[in-house]
Amino acid sequence: MTQTIARNARDSGDARRAFRLAERYREALDLPGEWNETLDVLLGHRSVRAFLPDAVPPGTIELLVAAAQSAASSSNLQPWSVVAVEQPERKARLAALAGEQKHIVQAPLFLVWLIDLHRLERIGAARGTTTGGLDYLETLLLGSVDTAIAAQNAVVALESLGLGSVYIGGIRNKPAEVARELGLPPHVVALVGLSVGFPDPDAPASVKPRLPQNAVLFREQYRHGPNAAAITAYDARLRSFQREQGMVERDWSEQATTRIRNAEALSGRHVMRETLLGLGFGLK
Amino acid sequence: MTQTIARNARDSGDARRAFRLAERYREALDLPGEWNETLDVLLGHRSVRAFLPDAVPPGTIELLVAAAQSAASSSNLQPWSVVAVEQPERKARLAALAGEQKHIVQAPLFLVWLIDLHRLERIGAARGTTTGGLDYLETLLLGSVDTAIAAQNAVVALESLGLGSVYIGGIRNKPAEVARELGLPPHVVALVGLSVGFPDPDAPASVKPRLPQNAVLFREQYRHGPNAAAITAYDARLRSFQREQGMVERDWSEQATTRIRNAEALSGRHVMRETLLGLGFGLK
Repeated sequence: MTQTIARNARDSGDARRAFRLAERYREALDLPGEWNETLDVLLGHRSVRAFLPDAVPPGTIELLVAAAQSAASSSNLQPWSVVAVEQPERKARLAALAGEQKHIVQAPLFLVWLIDLHRLERIGAARGTTTGGLDYLETLLLGSVDTAIAAQNAVVALESLGLGSVYIGGIRNKPAEVARELGLPPHVVALVGLSVGFPDPDAPASVKPRLPQNAVLFREQYRHGPNAAAITAYDARLRSFQREQGMVERDWSEQATTRIRNAEALSGRHVMRETLLGLGFGLK
Repeated sequence: MTQTIARNARDSGDARRAFRLAERYREALDLPGEWNETLDVLLGHRSVRAFLPDAVPPGTIELLVAAAQSAASSSNLQPWSVVAVEQPERKARLAALAGEQKHIVQAPLFLVWLIDLHRLERIGAARGTTTGGLDYLETLLLGSVDTAIAAQNAVVALESLGLGSVYIGGIRNKPAEVARELGLPPHVVALVGLSVGFPDPDAPASVKPRLPQNAVLFREQYRHGPNAAAITAYDARLRSFQREQGMVERDWSEQATTRIRNAEALSGRHVMRETLLGLGFGLK
């Protein structure tokens, strides 16, 4: 009996893994090994852009922050903060600054993840030490890594609870205006937003297919990535995804290159350097 | 019977949550709500710096990359790659470049997570389009976020499988030399390393306590963070952690401010801007 249960569990793990990998790659990828609930949450990720109006349950925000704080932190500097926005008017104003994405307003919770070097600066000031190390591009990068991995832990946590979310990179369209709206002190900038809520079951999101692994994973040394045929195959896979979603069909390689073709394609973010300098970052 | 099982499961969830939160904060934080395996993995994170020599099981690297690729990607640009290093000689050379951290050599696997704008540049070239949008600081930030959240998904996945890891920010100490070692083309830079393996049970790692939530979580608007007493209390909590670990006791506020006091404290990374320009990044 125990053996039967173990075999069934393994079979169901095998089936689940095969299903998740097929969803993600839309091509054969046969991997051995274990399967578990956490892997199922991770591989089942989809960005949710349609939410029910229900608020997130009490304690959820704190739990997501506990998950976020559980992520690693470089030298334990903990150089990030998060603002939880639930007031509809503030969400609407932030949505207007972040490219008028309606799901920012629709989702009951909008988390704004901040690179926060201000806290360290204050502690340095209290101790009477210099904090010149903050004024380097490296420190912005370090802050960006720590903030991003914290936010990602929150994403994994919320998905394990049946909630959904979508990152809002548009929060970087107008960083100075966002800083004013959120009352940010110098040396603090919004890195990403995250709309959070219960997914609307009438508008289910799907798993987006990704590039084949041989485009992103290399052994020992970098090799030039996918050949033209591999990209064409991925373009076709993404078109089939778009078709299923009722989206306009468009090659990934065209979408991606359009998004990076020039300064104008950056949604105002081509002035990021000047804006960050204005917010007190050194960027040396 | 079913009710008893459900109650026991809930009780054990409650106990588990209380245990994990107490480990993480070393102060009372009473949260309601569900508990599950994924939350247990997330909140139980610890950085592992002592590994068994055993290789990671077959298929593990691919599974971690599938988890990484399942993280969100801004405009689906997928601007990252990862190099899996297992050869002892290459690990040793990378360790020498990254601050001589012995766990890089000891762990059977070293993953180097790369911001990769080269792939997009190549696709643009193949399509005959300009790729000037890559030459902005914004695009580096975007790449850093996408790379970091991908790496973090791999961390969560590997911990769910009983493996352990530690991020190596020291991989940014000498980015040009790392680029040569890994054969990176222009527009690609190592953002973080990740040593991966089975934790050595004879040198167990502990959960590092973090700042109290009121230092990092704000509602609606930013408020100035913890007062001096809160920082002093956290310094004491971290000292008790250090004592348990047999580490030298030192206030967090002193450690943290020492780490950012000036350019010399950045382990050579104060030249990041010039180095990235040399690697082909625009940073406009």
